[in-house]
Amino acid sequence: MASLLKGVSPAQQTNMEVDYVISYRFATTEKQQAIAQFEELVKALASVGLATEVRNGADHSLLVFVKVASEEHMFGEVYRSRVQDWIHGVRAAAPTKEIKSVLEGEPMHEAERLRILYQLITNPKSQGGAGITPKEGEWKNVESIFALHDHVFNRQWIKKWSTQYVLKPEDLDEIRNRLGEKIAFYFAFTQSYFTFLAFPAAIGFSVWLLLGSFSPLYATLSCLWCVVFVEYWKHQETDLSIRWGVRGVSSIEHKRKEFVHEKEMKDPVTGETVQIFPATKRLQRQLLQIPFAIAAATVLGSLIATCFGIEIFISEIYNGPLKSILVSTSSIYVADVLFLTKTQVFLPTGILTTALPILTGMFTNFATQLTKYENYETEGAFQTAMTQKVFVLNFITSYLPIFLTAFVYVPFGSLIVPYLDIFSLTVRPFAENEKQMQVPQSGFTINPDRLRKQVIYFTVTAQLVNLGMEVVVPYLKRQGFIKYKQMQSERAAKKEGAAPDPAENDHPEEAAFLARVREEATLGVYDVTADLREMVVQFGYLSLFSVVWPLTAVSFLFNDWLELRADAIKICIEMQRPTPWRADTIGPWLDSLSFLSWLGSITTAALVYLFSNDGLGPDGRPHDIKGWGLLLSIFFSEHVYLLVRWAVGVAIAKIDSPGRQKERRDRYLVRMRYFQESLDRTAKIPVMGQANQLNVTRETLEEEARLASLATARSEDKFWARQRGWADAAKIGATLIERALPAEGKKVQ
Amino acid sequence: MASLLKGVSPAQQTNMEVDYVISYRFATTEKQQAIAQFEELVKALASVGLATEVRNGADHSLLVFVKVASEEHMFGEVYRSRVQDWIHGVRAAAPTKEIKSVLEGEPMHEAERLRILYQLITNPKSQGGAGITPKEGEWKNVESIFALHDHVFNRQWIKKWSTQYVLKPEDLDEIRNRLGEKIAFYFAFTQSYFTFLAFPAAIGFSVWLLLGSFSPLYATLSCLWCVVFVEYWKHQETDLSIRWGVRGVSSIEHKRKEFVHEKEMKDPVTGETVQIFPATKRLQRQLLQIPFAIAAATVLGSLIATCFGIEIFISEIYNGPLKSILVSTSSIYVADVLFLTKTQVFLPTGILTTALPILTGMFTNFATQLTKYENYETEGAFQTAMTQKVFVLNFITSYLPIFLTAFVYVPFGSLIVPYLDIFSLTVRPFAENEKQMQVPQSGFTINPDRLRKQVIYFTVTAQLVNLGMEVVVPYLKRQGFIKYKQMQSERAAKKEGAAPDPAENDHPEEAAFLARVREEATLGVYDVTADLREMVVQFGYLSLFSVVWPLTAVSFLFNDWLELRADAIKICIEMQRPTPWRADTIGPWLDSLSFLSWLGSITTAALVYLFSNDGLGPDGRPHDIKGWGLLLSIFFSEHVYLLVRWAVGVAIAKIDSPGRQKERRDRYLVRMRYFQESLDRTAKIPVMGQANQLNVTRETLEEEARLASLATARSEDKFWARQRGWADAAKIGATLIERALPAEGKKVQ
Repeated sequence: MASLLKGVSPAQQTNMEVDYVISYRFATTEKQQAIAQFEELVKALASVGLATEVRNGADHSLLVFVKVASEEHMFGEVYRSRVQDWIHGVRAAAPTKEIKSVLEGEPMHEAERLRILYQLITNPKSQGGAGITPKEGEWKNVESIFALHDHVFNRQWIKKWSTQYVLKPEDLDEIRNRLGEKIAFYFAFTQSYFTFLAFPAAIGFSVWLLLGSFSPLYATLSCLWCVVFVEYWKHQETDLSIRWGVRGVSSIEHKRKEFVHEKEMKDPVTGETVQIFPATKRLQRQLLQIPFAIAAATVLGSLIATCFGIEIFISEIYNGPLKSILVSTSSIYVADVLFLTKTQVFLPTGILTTALPILTGMFTNFATQLTKYENYETEGAFQTAMTQKVFVLNFITSYLPIFLTAFVYVPFGSLIVPYLDIFSLTVRPFAENEKQMQVPQSGFTINPDRLRKQVIYFTVTAQLVNLGMEVVVPYLKRQGFIKYKQMQSERAAKKEGAAPDPAENDHPEEAAFLARVREEATLGVYDVTADLREMVVQFGYLSLFSVVWPLTAVSFLFNDWLELRADAIKICIEMQRPTPWRADTIGPWLDSLSFLSWLGSITTAALVYLFSNDGLGPDGRPHDIKGWGLLLSIFFSEHVYLLVRWAVGVAIAKIDSPGRQKERRDRYLVRMRYFQESLDRTAKIPVMGQANQLNVTRETLEEEARLASLATARSEDKFWARQRGWADAAKIGATLIERALPAEGKKVQ
Repeated sequence: MASLLKGVSPAQQTNMEVDYVISYRFATTEKQQAIAQFEELVKALASVGLATEVRNGADHSLLVFVKVASEEHMFGEVYRSRVQDWIHGVRAAAPTKEIKSVLEGEPMHEAERLRILYQLITNPKSQGGAGITPKEGEWKNVESIFALHDHVFNRQWIKKWSTQYVLKPEDLDEIRNRLGEKIAFYFAFTQSYFTFLAFPAAIGFSVWLLLGSFSPLYATLSCLWCVVFVEYWKHQETDLSIRWGVRGVSSIEHKRKEFVHEKEMKDPVTGETVQIFPATKRLQRQLLQIPFAIAAATVLGSLIATCFGIEIFISEIYNGPLKSILVSTSSIYVADVLFLTKTQVFLPTGILTTALPILTGMFTNFATQLTKYENYETEGAFQTAMTQKVFVLNFITSYLPIFLTAFVYVPFGSLIVPYLDIFSLTVRPFAENEKQMQVPQSGFTINPDRLRKQVIYFTVTAQLVNLGMEVVVPYLKRQGFIKYKQMQSERAAKKEGAAPDPAENDHPEEAAFLARVREEATLGVYDVTADLREMVVQFGYLSLFSVVWPLTAVSFLFNDWLELRADAIKICIEMQRPTPWRADTIGPWLDSLSFLSWLGSITTAALVYLFSNDGLGPDGRPHDIKGWGLLLSIFFSEHVYLLVRWAVGVAIAKIDSPGRQKERRDRYLVRMRYFQESLDRTAKIPVMGQANQLNVTRETLEEEARLASLATARSEDKFWARQRGWADAAKIGATLIERALPAEGKKVQ
């Protein structure tokens, strides 16, 4: 944060024309080996035409500064990459023959430059790269390859955003030009989600004022909104991908280094030898996802359920001592609503907050292993498979507690609660006598407010906590990281005497710059999918449960305004400058969105049916719940949803957009050019239309005459020889008509 | 039929090289006008390079025989059409420059030739055609344009099919070559449907033997089968369209002549002026479909319901006289099962069989009007919209009766029946005394067998009746047609004295041929969509109701074997040779299939739940039906269905096929060619990889030296001037490492 506040220092005004910085650590390596490897490194870089400068890094590391030796090379690479795009169908028109003109026609932006250079450094030698793979194999000493922040831009960026309410397309273009399409897509999505939120926020607020919770009107509108938003985003996504000229890049597949092939065979199509991993075998491995999902659901589910049970037991049954402390679980929601921090010590939430993250972490690791085991051929496929698993985990941890309250606790509470006395064990130590432990068979009343509080907790407090975490955690991580580095190098120092201060012999005019680079070297790496996931999960709360508390959207509206800015700040300050990758979609998260909005149509209907009736029963439980009524409302709402989704999809598909027009124009131009070319060819062919009547008949005439004269004339030829040309045919036709209508014929004369 | 039996007569052995026959009728026209128009006709034909021969037609008509004047022209047209295809992306590779070689590489088949010629005759002059539009405007005398049957092929075709059980791909290719892709797709679909039927037939038969009706096992398998079939057909469709080189032809849009544009505007993309009809306005018109559907459902529905009611009343309540006759409605199903013809006179079926077709006809006409009113721009869009409406109508007439029995009569019968005495009016005339009319308040028992009988009726009898109709009706139509013609010409004759026998002055060697052509001129025009619709409706019975009577599939298996042959015969004998249109799909019917299989997952679950319980109640009604149970089973089954469909879709998409390989190969080759071209360009560019290390450093060295020497050297330049090339960087790096790890350094020495 500090660096921002004191504005752009001289050290931050220039990047010394550095394209990339490679941090090379040798604290844990034999010296000779370290030196040899380092030589390899700079040689490899030079071999692909990159100029290098070496400086001292912090804690037994070197910083290798890399830039392109000559712009001429750069142009070549850009041109090649654009031709590649065209061949893969990402561009409609082929780049013109003349390289300079190509770059004039469509100047190279920073992200493109950095992407190409990164690929140049990391691509295998076979593909013309330097083949440097950080932390892997022979390059395990290469700690990171990162570009330097453009602090001048960053400063303006944050300043601009923090003062304006909505982001314009130009702002997104700017991000795309600096940080690449992948990150730009995240911001574009969040922005358009944020804009759309205005509608449910307005509706929600007025409904909250006038109708309160569980209003069917709000339910309908919110479902409709979900549909429209998701469908519209699909439409917008395409448009953006065209606008940024990346439509179809996801079809350019990056092979995974880790992919293990089973057998090699000749591709029947291309004749190249391809590495094959049998799909059936992969399918078998993929089937492991089912037990995985079940296991995750059971473990996490039962943990949540248990804590939930304990909590209910303590807060609503148990009357023993220490209740004041133990109870605070239930009061946690209230506390959260009032933005109090939960400083109290208490049992169930204690268990949750400790056990849940650990378990989730374990499952996530397991998911990663599983996905690796599924052995995908391309990065894209791998990411998709991983995202699906992550989504499942998030789904359980984020939504299950509310599901429990809504569909188990409230309807069946009075049936289940009596069995909760097993939890009495948990509080036995605090109880003085038995009867405190007794569960009152009667008189227990469900607390219907719990659901609302819980939703508020997840949609207000949790969101804010997350937001805080996002800025704090990386900072702490970083501190820890630095500590770890220092320890390592101290250990190294112990071995070889005190290490010198890396900055000791910096050239004075570089000192500030180098200091800054050393700092950036310690920053974390930004992962955009984490932020995307957060947004999707948030959308889930809106589509699934917002009917419980119509103000949900309002809270999100504020939250996301901050979120967008916080992420910007995070990228600028807390993280290394991200490598600008390309993308033409937010990927598998799109499916998650559709799924959530679909599921929303079910839960919303169920919630409305369960709770919207005029009042709650004597035991605080909504009375006259009919099973068939519940199911019927679900069935109805779901099918209306599907119908509406179809209709909206069709309608939105009709909307034209600048992007689509651009694409059509390009296609049209290309097609016209081809058409011209082919015209030149077809010009030579005699066109039927212009076939000269006379000579046609002349030919046929003579031809047929000849044939007819032959004794052995084919009946076909005779048939066609009877009349000569159209005039002849017309004459004969006339006579035939004459003969058919003679009487009238006379009249005419 | 006759002509087939007596085999290929000499008259049928040759078509006299005729491409098309145009039948020109003038019975209702002024003579001079007729003559003038005829002259126009032949002139127009000649103007596009077609040779003509005129002969007398039957009943005041002329037959104009058309063939291409010279094959050279033909080639030109074919080449042009192929270039068009390529430009529209139907072909991956552009036709080679040399025309002859193109036709050698991919010889023109008959269907292609006929299609191109037909377009040549009918296309507007602006598109280089003769602009002859049968029965329209100035060409209202042009009765029909049809190609002549290839009787030798037809004979072989039917002979072959009637002897072999399954059709091989080659057979389909043969049809495609002769009759075009559109018809070939119908046969391909029916064939693959027929092949798939083997599975449910086998399952169904064994289930019928062992488990009887309403078995959950059968229900599951049949639903699964539906999914697999539909998904697989989608896959196969793509494959065929590639195999036949028509993939994407549906995107080549044929403008509708009837399209009325509201305003003209410049296309933002192409800059051409395009005719616009506002989409919003069309949407408003399309919304009329909703009332239309409702009206159709109400009218047809209430008609069916009424007859149903009357029938139940008579058969199961009424005990008056004439019952024996009146009752026969209910016995109709039995009769049908025993393949008895329904000769008896009886009330409700009487009403149905008379009123239903009339009403359906009316609605179909109305649908056509509505679709025209919706004013679509392209033929494709028009067809789609029409098909949807037709499907709705068919859905009501085909499935509603069974729905009524299954979901109204059986569960609620005992509630409704008491109200049926209103129908007593219908039989009052026959009753002797009042008490016969009384509805027994008690003692009424539902006849659970009715459902089975009904299903059997629709899946066995109705199918066979249809099959018969398909061959008989056209024959009758034709007879009527001939009669009508004769009347017309007799009227004409009355005016102008006896018309001469058209055949009176045929050339002897042509006589037989001409007689045959005159006959073919009277034949009807084949409409493939009607046959497709039939198949889709049949599939509906299977997916919706086959659980009621597992033998359904067996019956269809036999029926469709005949169906395929009957259609072949129909095309060969009862109909004019169809114009070979192209298509790359069975079109909107595909959606109908998906919809039916989806709906099937619901109905099947419902039927199984309603009827599969151990027995029926005292009143013949399945007892212990729980609303929530029914809904739950539906909900469950539907969602399992959707899940399975998704999975199957994914799995099948993975299947490779010769067609797809072909496509990939073509794409690959094209891509390679482009790549070569671009390589030639990029070759000039200095590749980074090969950047010569030395001269790079040399340049930079001198450059930087110069800059460094300047007092005003930029700090960037100084920064990059510190080290000279990679060797230098490596050396400095080494020293830095040395200094960082001195102790170990000593060790090494």
